[in-house]
Amino acid sequence: MAGNTFGTLFRLTTFGESHGHAMGGIVDGCPAGLALDLDAVQAELARRRPGQSSLTTSRKEADEVQWLSGTVEHEGGPVTTGAPIGFTVANTSARPADYDHLKDTFRPSHADFTYEAKYGLRDVRGGGRASARETVSRVVAGAVARQILATLGVEVGAYVERVQDISMPLPPSFHSRDEVDAHPVRCPHPETAARMADRIADVKKAGDTVGGAIVLVARGVPAGWGEPVFDRLHADLAKAMWSLPATKSLELGSGLSGTLMRGSEHNDKFVDRGDRIGTATNRSGGIQGGISNGEDILLRVGFKPVATVLQPSSSVDRDGNPVELEGRGRHDPCVLPRAVPLVEAMACLVLVDHALRQRAARLTFGA
Amino acid sequence: MAGNTFGTLFRLTTFGESHGHAMGGIVDGCPAGLALDLDAVQAELARRRPGQSSLTTSRKEADEVQWLSGTVEHEGGPVTTGAPIGFTVANTSARPADYDHLKDTFRPSHADFTYEAKYGLRDVRGGGRASARETVSRVVAGAVARQILATLGVEVGAYVERVQDISMPLPPSFHSRDEVDAHPVRCPHPETAARMADRIADVKKAGDTVGGAIVLVARGVPAGWGEPVFDRLHADLAKAMWSLPATKSLELGSGLSGTLMRGSEHNDKFVDRGDRIGTATNRSGGIQGGISNGEDILLRVGFKPVATVLQPSSSVDRDGNPVELEGRGRHDPCVLPRAVPLVEAMACLVLVDHALRQRAARLTFGA
Amino acid sequence: MAGNTFGTLFRLTTFGESHGHAMGGIVDGCPAGLALDLDAVQAELARRRPGQSSLTTSRKEADEVQWLSGTVEHEGGPVTTGAPIGFTVANTSARPADYDHLKDTFRPSHADFTYEAKYGLRDVRGGGRASARETVSRVVAGAVARQILATLGVEVGAYVERVQDISMPLPPSFHSRDEVDAHPVRCPHPETAARMADRIADVKKAGDTVGGAIVLVARGVPAGWGEPVFDRLHADLAKAMWSLPATKSLELGSGLSGTLMRGSEHNDKFVDRGDRIGTATNRSGGIQGGISNGEDILLRVGFKPVATVLQPSSSVDRDGNPVELEGRGRHDPCVLPRAVPLVEAMACLVLVDHALRQRAARLTFGA
Amino acid sequence: MAGNTFGTLFRLTTFGESHGHAMGGIVDGCPAGLALDLDAVQAELARRRPGQSSLTTSRKEADEVQWLSGTVEHEGGPVTTGAPIGFTVANTSARPADYDHLKDTFRPSHADFTYEAKYGLRDVRGGGRASARETVSRVVAGAVARQILATLGVEVGAYVERVQDISMPLPPSFHSRDEVDAHPVRCPHPETAARMADRIADVKKAGDTVGGAIVLVARGVPAGWGEPVFDRLHADLAKAMWSLPATKSLELGSGLSGTLMRGSEHNDKFVDRGDRIGTATNRSGGIQGGISNGEDILLRVGFKPVATVLQPSSSVDRDGNPVELEGRGRHDPCVLPRAVPLVEAMACLVLVDHALRQRAARLTFGA
Repeated sequence: MAGNTFGTLFRLTTFGESHGHAMGGIVDGCPAGLALDLDAVQAELARRRPGQSSLTTSRKEADEVQWLSGTVEHEGGPVTTGAPIGFTVANTSARPADYDHLKDTFRPSHADFTYEAKYGLRDVRGGGRASARETVSRVVAGAVARQILATLGVEVGAYVERVQDISMPLPPSFHSRDEVDAHPVRCPHPETAARMADRIADVKKAGDTVGGAIVLVARGVPAGWGEPVFDRLHADLAKAMWSLPATKSLELGSGLSGTLMRGSEHNDKFVDRGDRIGTATNRSGGIQGGISNGEDILLRVGFKPVATVLQPSSSVDRDGNPVELEGRGRHDPCVLPRAVPLVEAMACLVLVDHALRQRAARLTFGA
Repeated sequence: MAGNTFGTLFRLTTFGESHGHAMGGIVDGCPAGLALDLDAVQAELARRRPGQSSLTTSRKEADEVQWLSGTVEHEGGPVTTGAPIGFTVANTSARPADYDHLKDTFRPSHADFTYEAKYGLRDVRGGGRASARETVSRVVAGAVARQILATLGVEVGAYVERVQDISMPLPPSFHSRDEVDAHPVRCPHPETAARMADRIADVKKAGDTVGGAIVLVARGVPAGWGEPVFDRLHADLAKAMWSLPATKSLELGSGLSGTLMRGSEHNDKFVDRGDRIGTATNRSGGIQGGISNGEDILLRVGFKPVATVLQPSSSVDRDGNPVELEGRGRHDPCVLPRAVPLVEAMACLVLVDHALRQRAARLTFGA
Repeated sequence: MAGNTFGTLFRLTTFGESHGHAMGGIVDGCPAGLALDLDAVQAELARRRPGQSSLTTSRKEADEVQWLSGTVEHEGGPVTTGAPIGFTVANTSARPADYDHLKDTFRPSHADFTYEAKYGLRDVRGGGRASARETVSRVVAGAVARQILATLGVEVGAYVERVQDISMPLPPSFHSRDEVDAHPVRCPHPETAARMADRIADVKKAGDTVGGAIVLVARGVPAGWGEPVFDRLHADLAKAMWSLPATKSLELGSGLSGTLMRGSEHNDKFVDRGDRIGTATNRSGGIQGGISNGEDILLRVGFKPVATVLQPSSSVDRDGNPVELEGRGRHDPCVLPRAVPLVEAMACLVLVDHALRQRAARLTFGA
Repeated sequence: MAGNTFGTLFRLTTFGESHGHAMGGIVDGCPAGLALDLDAVQAELARRRPGQSSLTTSRKEADEVQWLSGTVEHEGGPVTTGAPIGFTVANTSARPADYDHLKDTFRPSHADFTYEAKYGLRDVRGGGRASARETVSRVVAGAVARQILATLGVEVGAYVERVQDISMPLPPSFHSRDEVDAHPVRCPHPETAARMADRIADVKKAGDTVGGAIVLVARGVPAGWGEPVFDRLHADLAKAMWSLPATKSLELGSGLSGTLMRGSEHNDKFVDRGDRIGTATNRSGGIQGGISNGEDILLRVGFKPVATVLQPSSSVDRDGNPVELEGRGRHDPCVLPRAVPLVEAMACLVLVDHALRQRAARLTFGA
């Protein structure tokens, strides 16, 4: 209950600090019998990896997963056994000494002050546990979850919809990974992507940072996932998204614009889709009463501009004395391109968890 | 794990359907030694009660709590013993027959379809478990939590900031209950409140509904509450808010507007406040790295227009055949005034839970 | 996490004190679609009820369940909907004043001292939450669980094997309820039952109490239930049995006698049973590696003589001063006959929970 | 919820198979500020290590912990930060090929059959996850927990009381580690220890195995730990002990012999101990009503003779066909000496967890 475990039946527990020995985690509750595609996991990590383009931090990490348990070799590849999957990802580019000058100082809008207030001491090296490097373990587990979802016909994709005030001119919808990854900014609208990249380059030059918004779409989710009343599917998705390092806002389906409509125009009318009952519009974002209804699940996550700017800044030390901080280190001018796989990973974790939980909802399973 | 329990150390488990025998719940983990003010709990329920003004549904419920366990009489009043607090709230105005015509039909944007998809059957009476009446138990538990927070110097208040497009002209900040409850619409800006009330009256006349936004402020929260990395304080607050029936959006601190700023302008500079280290601005919304920093916690929750409109509407039955629904029943044209105590209750539950969890964070408690 | 919830997917949370308003609980996670036999639940409560024979306490309680939620009427009876099942059982024979003289005194081997040490105050009325009356809610939930198990072909039965040193001359095995309940002492060996009853009558006359042992047998449990490594099926059964008020010992399968054997004689050889693989002996008690193997699950639970004796006794008050206690109140000379339904109820709760958990063990359910 | 996590606030999650890459785990919820003595942890592992004497398996493992996270260097040594502690222990002596002949066969009283029944496939290498090697991670976490308990004045010690029918002639009581470890059999009564060692040597020569009993004593536990009604302190200790690989019986305090007494003789009279209220006898085993009372906590755990015997044995294959198994591999003739640190580790985990949980029991902590 100290906050490093996520999920109920499909559970991830993580450990690791930014400049410590290694990051890692344990996936417990992965069903037995999954032929695990390790390359696919590695490919997800490559999407999160620092240094992948000029838009991201220059820190270089191989981010290779070391798999420690939970599978046996079967027909030429690893298959899950139902045992917990332990893994580590080494920190090869740790530079703890970079942070010695911060040991008595609290950087603005970082977790330096709050960690020390909570625990009485803190790991100053790169933010320690508060570093976004922690999310590497989520991507590993999310990539395992995605492979389970694939067996159920569920696809999860996200993309950058907006960087600062530069926004795609299209409503949220599913875009293939090829479309999304065609541009390093991960916006599937090429013209907008180019403008976003320019903005990020400008901001980087100024030693500053920008935020924006990511759209998440899950398609193929069958009707019936989600556990009222507290573990509504979107409540667990919300917790997932707000557990990411820089989240500032979240919208479901029609989101903010939905709060401006009248009920008579906002309601999604049911229609017969032949093989299933669907809705004519999807303002609900695929979830009604906390349970998936078979339509696309649509979320929009807003991210703040990251706090680490390469500009001088004023702050205080532990005793409240004013100090000047120079801006240095290796950081992202805009986290959104690298946050796309994080948003996807967290969504995959929630969806698999609820897929398994749904198996207990009826007396006769499958009926 | 079927979704009807909320919290870790301070836990609420609820039961009850809209038109069943009773609503109720169990608060487990309420610390021993709290002199419980039952009238204060009842007063919270009065704020949530239907029929309290012309702006709300005409369903009448006394909503009196029956306390079943967990206290002993001590110096003239009940004091908690550490045992679970069981309670019920009777359904006195249940009219299950009102819903007979819906048993084969799915109302648009309600949970009728998804509950049936999930469980294979459903309680058609007023939405059953999916009814917002379920929140009555949250208000009871939240009111207990609020009394614990008071002993820690923490105050929690919410208010209606916006109805449809009518919004207060002031930035989010703490308003006293007297200010908020001065107008039945629960907006502490009288002129805006009056405009909101007019809009709601218009919409009601049209048999329609509207949504809007509620601001939640918690002040006095000490630095140090929240459990990285998954149980960040705002991640648990997010889950709490998204577990409410009509949530469409959530923002923390600067929220959406923060995603448009540059990092250099968004960062909250630390300043010496004499007795504590504070921040000059509060774009972080009182939480950094998932842990409270001592500033006001600021959330904005967007609510959709409720789905039940008193207008005819088309839908389908279980077999996909088109049906026409007339609009009838007793419903709120705008849930926001009654949602204020819900938002507060959920915030209180999360904050007490994290106050207790924080007690385990250090080897030497209090050091 | 304050200890009043049991189970993972099928969860019981309880409340209530011996001389408070009511006992009760919430069953969350009961699968939808169970046609609930309420009379069968009531019949289980009748087996636990005080005053059912001269061997038990003279306290009279109707112990009628009031069902508050979680079902709909379908084809003439209640069917579970997947919503939480709330219930209460009134305390009709509460005599709180009987305990006023104990408010500053700690009865030997009761929970008076430890509750006060833990919580700083206590409910003196009949032991408050520490009373065995708390188990009434377990029997209700266990009876629901038993009905789910019946749909899976699992039967759970217990009986009194030993009272003090009077023991059945037969090895543990399944006995039907008719056999067990044929004698109020609930020992299915009539001659032994008669001797046990005589012993209990003697002890009652002396104002004293006796303990003994109960055997629990679950038959029809399929191979595959149990979650290594910590939630081994017998680890959860152990926790269940040790959560009962007077447990002193627990044995699985061969139990203590097994610890005296050599491995070569203790091992259960596998044999082909035609439709399944079985074992020639059952020293494992139906569980190997923490997972059921298809053989009968066999447990033996030892209970102490209850602490409330109707004899004068010395103790101390809150300040450590010696006090003399007279023996009075309404109590059982031997809890074992009434503990039989408790042992069964707890076993049913564990088994249903693991039946549901097993549904998540494989990628392809049912394969 | 797949069974590989133990504890509530102080939580261990483990992974690893006997002949896989590594064992390991994550301790989440270790309070910040503990100066961690890594050598002391290593010393506990040395007590569990195979090959430590002629009484144990000849498998050789260095069992060195690799610490991956959760501490910072402070005043010359590692101090916990409140972040999760990740660790691994390499498998250096894995011989997976030793088990190829078992892939279609189920060894008697092993977990081969049940794992396959549960998961549909299994890791045949040395029992995979079902191997007792899994307990290495428990010893690591238990050793961390022990260091927290030391700051609270709590000592935890266990010893071998009985091997098969050879038993110490003394009642259960605390023995120092020096006394216990003076003889490799870990019985603190030298004469009995010598007889036990002879018996084990005889049995080893015969290719057979024996079981016995271990006594666990925790002293210095303050009154007040334990969470009624389900998480009674002894219920959690019971689950802990029954989660170990070869447990067959458990007794608390007077245990089985207590079930033969009358209540009037079994009750523990309270007495004034000057600084605290104590009991004249300790038949309760230090726990009343599920809460510690300040007396020594006394448990007795019975272990079966391990199933792996070096004798030929008959069994069946997956299709039920009879097969002959030769006895081979590296195994312990008697697990009890090596189980002593396991019993202690599990007790330490439970006690620290409840120490932290007790911090939330009262409104005013410490009052």
